[in-house]
Amino acid sequence: MKIEVDYRFPVGIDPERQAKVIALGQTVGTWDASFAHREASFHKHQGEVAQVERQDDGTAIATVRFPTINVEGDIASLLTMIFGKYSMAGPAKVVDVRLPEDYGQRAKFGISGVRSRLGVLDRPLVMAIFKPALGLSAADHAQILGEVAGAGLDVIKDDEILGNLESAPTLERLRACLPVLDAAQQRTGKPLLYAVNVTGRADQLLAQAKRLIEAGANALLLNVLTYGFSVLEALAQDPEITVPIFAHPALAGALCGAPDHGFSYGVLLGTLMAHAGADAVLYPAHYGSLPFSAAEERHIRDALRDRNVFPVPSAGIHPGIVPKAIADYGIDVILNAGTGIMDHPDGAAAGVQAFFEALNVEAQKAKAQNANAQSQTQPGQPFDLDQIPPGPLRRALEKWGT
Amino acid sequence: MKIEVDYRFPVGIDPERQAKVIALGQTVGTWDASFAHREASFHKHQGEVAQVERQDDGTAIATVRFPTINVEGDIASLLTMIFGKYSMAGPAKVVDVRLPEDYGQRAKFGISGVRSRLGVLDRPLVMAIFKPALGLSAADHAQILGEVAGAGLDVIKDDEILGNLESAPTLERLRACLPVLDAAQQRTGKPLLYAVNVTGRADQLLAQAKRLIEAGANALLLNVLTYGFSVLEALAQDPEITVPIFAHPALAGALCGAPDHGFSYGVLLGTLMAHAGADAVLYPAHYGSLPFSAAEERHIRDALRDRNVFPVPSAGIHPGIVPKAIADYGIDVILNAGTGIMDHPDGAAAGVQAFFEALNVEAQKAKAQNANAQSQTQPGQPFDLDQIPPGPLRRALEKWGT
Repeated sequence: MKIEVDYRFPVGIDPERQAKVIALGQTVGTWDASFAHREASFHKHQGEVAQVERQDDGTAIATVRFPTINVEGDIASLLTMIFGKYSMAGPAKVVDVRLPEDYGQRAKFGISGVRSRLGVLDRPLVMAIFKPALGLSAADHAQILGEVAGAGLDVIKDDEILGNLESAPTLERLRACLPVLDAAQQRTGKPLLYAVNVTGRADQLLAQAKRLIEAGANALLLNVLTYGFSVLEALAQDPEITVPIFAHPALAGALCGAPDHGFSYGVLLGTLMAHAGADAVLYPAHYGSLPFSAAEERHIRDALRDRNVFPVPSAGIHPGIVPKAIADYGIDVILNAGTGIMDHPDGAAAGVQAFFEALNVEAQKAKAQNANAQSQTQPGQPFDLDQIPPGPLRRALEKWGT
Repeated sequence: MKIEVDYRFPVGIDPERQAKVIALGQTVGTWDASFAHREASFHKHQGEVAQVERQDDGTAIATVRFPTINVEGDIASLLTMIFGKYSMAGPAKVVDVRLPEDYGQRAKFGISGVRSRLGVLDRPLVMAIFKPALGLSAADHAQILGEVAGAGLDVIKDDEILGNLESAPTLERLRACLPVLDAAQQRTGKPLLYAVNVTGRADQLLAQAKRLIEAGANALLLNVLTYGFSVLEALAQDPEITVPIFAHPALAGALCGAPDHGFSYGVLLGTLMAHAGADAVLYPAHYGSLPFSAAEERHIRDALRDRNVFPVPSAGIHPGIVPKAIADYGIDVILNAGTGIMDHPDGAAAGVQAFFEALNVEAQKAKAQNANAQSQTQPGQPFDLDQIPPGPLRRALEKWGT
């Protein structure tokens, strides 16, 4: 199988011409008679225009096929080929990339591996974020963790901007939190994953990841786009990296936010992450606090789950969105809330409880529906505040809405 | 000194409001009474809006100041802070970044180091690209190199899309070319740098770079944006990387091409490359084959040269642009031509000779001007074909124009 890439061109661009420029210019280029003896080889490396389709809105989508022998089975060489120099040639957006199934890497853990580590097979996972993002000490982190750990939280992560800073060095944060993680496991009978933000120059980052795991880290967080896909791939293939890698989308908007340039979010955070070995990928939920389209979210979800990668819709997530999330995702999703847990009016533990209560209410609704019973509120419909008893969920819905 | 970032917002966006969202949301975030004991620490980490200025075209530029204690002195943590999550929040373009002088790394070689390696102090350097980009064998590369090496070429590079491919593995290409490089040095009395494309997963790439240098490589080429700034930084700081690193801009258009998203080219290919340790940086020339603004090119040129990094305007470079290039750059520039050398009607060696002839003609014009002599053509003016004697330059100008 070849590599197929869909480029969308805006009105005013000649898509047939540009597709040819890509198919040739991003592969062999031109040659003259002096290279006639290499023609067979050139043809093997050449791209080809598969089709050009005009859309109702006047844009056009051109599909270019690239030989897999031009690239190295990784994301960086793929990006250089499909959009390296051409990205500077004028408006064009990469809206889909179809790769051979064995292209790149598979998640070491992914959905099934993370579930089996946690021993949680039958419901969405609940994830929190340490907040405030900067300025807390390692001991502060341990204290916050203590609050949410007892409530049964599944995963917690550093804020993506919290690196290895003097005010709370990464290894110190981890060490302060480890006893709390242990205590939580004793109490709840299941691990709590703490995705520690791994940072630094490429060489330091790879060494730091091993140091963190040696020290007891049970998950990693990586800002894939600011450090590079090549760094994610190095972590993902390394047998010493024995913990799941949570991929953060920081900077994705610089590559995907523009209408006629860069990539669709689905390509970057779905397809490419899933072929680079991420175990779970964070991205904005379309009903969250960042502008995001439902179609992009579906594209990401499907690209990830096709390869057993956990989707983690994020940003502005609170218990009120649980019905919509379940309707969109079923159970194979990680619900990731920052302030939606940490800023619960009754504290962070209540924030976690509110999510579990919300998941239970939805599960009950689904059971009732499966039993053909009549239920005032159908699964997927917003919570009806009147039907929610006093407690963490109700308090959350009163604060953040249904 | 703090880090200052200029964000440009299009018409219709409230710049004061968004600047505050960035200053807070990309640093500490919000906190409640339970963290009152950490207020002093939070304030140290908090960003601040320095100013908001409306432009004549209705856009606005907001300057946000970030504390350097929030980041790790590298580009990845910087990008995560200044534009990580916020890049997904709506239209905004990072148009300038001002970093402390000691932020990041300095080129090991840069302009002065590359010049001293070559022993060429008083003129622009001439650089070629192996073409066609894919499908040649290692022996083909050696043969092409032989043609241009004798003509006194200063630098040659792999095409950026030519990675470590079965048809011509990187180490084989290098090994095939080494005797030619040696012979050229014997003949011309100066080295010819061959910037070998170093590729692979981060861990493999770092190891491969050392292997190539051990085998005799005297320069490296890196697609910084597809592999990651963290990889460039790892190479740049490594004392075993004893050769100049040429940074290629592949993928820059995905990050910089859109009017209201991402980065200005000047920030990405100028400021950030110069603080990440690149020795020379390639980017489109504004009079080349890619659409590029003269202002962006100036921004890049100045950001690079401020830190002793060699600017390498590229894409569509041919001998006819030499007068303009000299007017823009003076002598501290590397003129990088692919087809502009390789497709010379009389062959690649003539392609190199045409560049040197062009440089000589310009140098003569400048001398004449300095001597207050009258000259029919002033420096910086296009070549007058009638004044160019038959030979490689004239043939080049007849093909590609003046």
